[in-house]
Amino acid sequence: MEFKPISTQSLQRLPLYLNYLKSLPKDGVANISATTIAGSLNLNDVQVRKDLASVSTGGRPKIGYITEELISNLEHYLGYDNAESAVIVGAGNFGRALLSYKGFSEYGLDIIVAFDVDEFIIGTTINGKQVLSTDKIKDICSRMKIRLGIITVPENEAQGVCDALIEGGVLAILNFAHVHLNVPDHVLVQNENVASSLAVLSKHLTEKLNKN
Amino acid sequence: MEFKPISTQSLQRLPLYLNYLKSLPKDGVANISATTIAGSLNLNDVQVRKDLASVSTGGRPKIGYITEELISNLEHYLGYDNAESAVIVGAGNFGRALLSYKGFSEYGLDIIVAFDVDEFIIGTTINGKQVLSTDKIKDICSRMKIRLGIITVPENEAQGVCDALIEGGVLAILNFAHVHLNVPDHVLVQNENVASSLAVLSKHLTEKLNKN
Repeated sequence: MEFKPISTQSLQRLPLYLNYLKSLPKDGVANISATTIAGSLNLNDVQVRKDLASVSTGGRPKIGYITEELISNLEHYLGYDNAESAVIVGAGNFGRALLSYKGFSEYGLDIIVAFDVDEFIIGTTINGKQVLSTDKIKDICSRMKIRLGIITVPENEAQGVCDALIEGGVLAILNFAHVHLNVPDHVLVQNENVASSLAVLSKHLTEKLNKN
Repeated sequence: MEFKPISTQSLQRLPLYLNYLKSLPKDGVANISATTIAGSLNLNDVQVRKDLASVSTGGRPKIGYITEELISNLEHYLGYDNAESAVIVGAGNFGRALLSYKGFSEYGLDIIVAFDVDEFIIGTTINGKQVLSTDKIKDICSRMKIRLGIITVPENEAQGVCDALIEGGVLAILNFAHVHLNVPDHVLVQNENVASSLAVLSKHLTEKLNKN
């Protein structure tokens, strides 16, 4: 069946629900209501009910959802049950941390190869993933039908790497480089930028501390 | 002097400008215009001009900004020249990666101590930072006047840890835990959530691939 289109905000909350449901004792909670989930996550009741209705038809008045069913509905909707192959470009400190990060596989992401410019690490493996030269990005992505790329290179290399990924057929980019990427309309970039978050926090601190 | 209030979006772009300016050859670019910066970062001209006017009065028609002056204006505005002490709660894999991440000190953040619940790592040091028991969060933060806390604990521990930080006087929280945190109005949380970004990217892929 078809579900209604979902807003980006709703979509971003879905992993929260899934995480919470999976944290419940396996033999304990057969049924769960949107209200219970909302209460546990400090979210709005009505919002949670609406979000869940976008991914599951299993909600029953007074009973709620069958927990296991809701988990599999969420996993299916988020594509976690159908691993997407991805590549990482940039195998420096941060790239290495990501290559060793177990969370990605839980999120339905299978990182199959890394790229770097450093000739000392090209040809090595990190956590079982081969590191190849960035010259091969377009070729490998195209051959292996990679749709998702993760960028962790220095700022001045990010746009070039991004262009190579897109030429290789990548449609979605998770960008940890601290720079704005220029992409065509059919490509979506999500920026993960700690410095920007810290800028916002730092300003908040200045304001609060000057006031007190 | 007083600058005008700045929007969160503008604030989040400031680290991009600073990073770009610092990447320029030291002996090369004495002056730089908002147009040049905008061009290099693929941003809108007018937007960049407006953002920079919020942090510096040094812009001159046809000449632009004195590069070194603009760098120090940005560093000052972002608080990078005046290190803020911070703590990390959660010294698992991801917390360890953050404790070893050199970028934080460039962003004016001085991580002085880590907290964890695991008795096997309490009392050890990671990258020169001591790991203490989470029981001491409130006390240490309060005694050392810590205003900024970084949370990298599992979801089910995050709210408790967050409450302890706030009781200790923390006003700003960088949250890597995959859960919504409930905080009083005077506290600001910035969420860094890879799973949510991946959810958005995955949906985009599904839509694109079904269409083609």
